[in-house]
Amino acid sequence: MTEPAPVFASGVDHERLTSQLRFILETDKLKRILRRNMLVDGSRRENDAEHSWHLALAARVFAEYAPAGTDIDRVVEMLVLHDIVEIDAGDTFIYDPGQADSQSERERAAADRIFALLPEDQARSTRALWEEFEARGTAEARFAKAIDRLAPMLANWHTEGGTWVRHGVTRSQVAEKVKIIAEGSEALGSYAVALIEDAERRGYLAVG
Amino acid sequence: MTEPAPVFASGVDHERLTSQLRFILETDKLKRILRRNMLVDGSRRENDAEHSWHLALAARVFAEYAPAGTDIDRVVEMLVLHDIVEIDAGDTFIYDPGQADSQSERERAAADRIFALLPEDQARSTRALWEEFEARGTAEARFAKAIDRLAPMLANWHTEGGTWVRHGVTRSQVAEKVKIIAEGSEALGSYAVALIEDAERRGYLAVG
Repeated sequence: MTEPAPVFASGVDHERLTSQLRFILETDKLKRILRRNMLVDGSRRENDAEHSWHLALAARVFAEYAPAGTDIDRVVEMLVLHDIVEIDAGDTFIYDPGQADSQSERERAAADRIFALLPEDQARSTRALWEEFEARGTAEARFAKAIDRLAPMLANWHTEGGTWVRHGVTRSQVAEKVKIIAEGSEALGSYAVALIEDAERRGYLAVG
Repeated sequence: MTEPAPVFASGVDHERLTSQLRFILETDKLKRILRRNMLVDGSRRENDAEHSWHLALAARVFAEYAPAGTDIDRVVEMLVLHDIVEIDAGDTFIYDPGQADSQSERERAAADRIFALLPEDQARSTRALWEEFEARGTAEARFAKAIDRLAPMLANWHTEGGTWVRHGVTRSQVAEKVKIIAEGSEALGSYAVALIEDAERRGYLAVG
C-alpha cells in the first residue's frame, strides 16, 4: 500500500484527508488491471480504469435510452466505481463459468478491504452504491449494467470479433448478455440484438 | 474514423444513434493519449482516459472540500470530458510555455471537430460544459480544475519527484499551479502548499 505524503495541511482534518488520499492512491492500481477485450483500434488490451471512464461518458451520451426518471448522475457514479473491486479480485471473463463461480466471493472480500480505506461515512455509501450496481434492483443499476455489457460488444465487433473469436464464444452465450442490456434499456437492447445478428453473419460467433 | 456497425435497431432513431456511436468510438482514442506523469507505482506513463476516470473518482471523494453549493455531478461530468480535445491537440505539458501558447487554438479546433460528431443538441451542451471548464468562471469549473491540478502532484510526489525532477520544474512554476488549486478549494489548496513544501525539502523541485 502506498502511504500518502506525511504532510499536515492547516484547517483540514488530517486523519480524514489521509484516509481519502490513501483510497485515491490505492485505486491508481485499477489502471493496471487488464480486461480481455482490446481497444477499438485493436492495439492493446483495455484496462479497467480507462474502461470505467468510457462507460461514464457513454452513460451520459446514451442517457435518453434509459427508462424515464433514471438518475444518470447516479449511474455515472456507479460506473466510476463499479470495477474497483477488481484491484484485488482481478478481471473476471464473463464467458468463463469456472471463474464466475468464485467471482462474487472474491469481489466481496475486495470491497471489504478497499472501500474501508475511506472514512467510515464514505466507505458505507460507496459500498452501498457498489452493492446496488451488483444487485441490479434499480433502474440506475440496470442501466449501468447495460452500458457495461454493450461497450465490449462494440469493441469486439470493431476488432473483427475480438474476444468472441479468440475464445470461441457462441451466439447463445452472447444472447445472455444481450438480455441484460435489454433489461436496462429497451433501445440499447434492440441495438445489441441487431449487432449480434450482424456479428453472426460475419462469422464472429461460434455455433451453439 | 471508425464507422459504427451498419445495423438498424427497431424503434430507434438510426441517424441519432449512429452519431452517438461514432462519438463513443472516436473517443476510444483518448486511451492512447499519453500524459507526462507516471502511474503512482512509476511503471509507465498515464493516459488521458484513465486520468479522467481517476479525477471523476477523486472529485466525489473530495467533494466536501468544494465550496458549499458546488454541484459535484456537474464537476464529474466536466472531468469526464475535459481532456477529449487532446485526441487531436495532444497532451500539453503545463510547464512548457512554448506549447501552451498554441494550446488554446489547437484545443478549440479539436472541440469543433470532436464534439460535433454528436447529435446537435448534445454537441452544443457538451461543448458548453467544456468551455465552462476552460473558463473557470464557476465554482464547478474551479473545483474540477483544482482536482485536475492536484492529481499529477500526488503522482509526482509518489514517484520521487517524477516529471518535476525529469523536467527541472522549479518551485515558483509549481506555485502557480497551487494557486489554481486554492482557487477551487481552500482545503485542497492548503494541502497542495504543504505537499510542495515537503517536495522542496526532499529536493524534488529545482531552485527558481
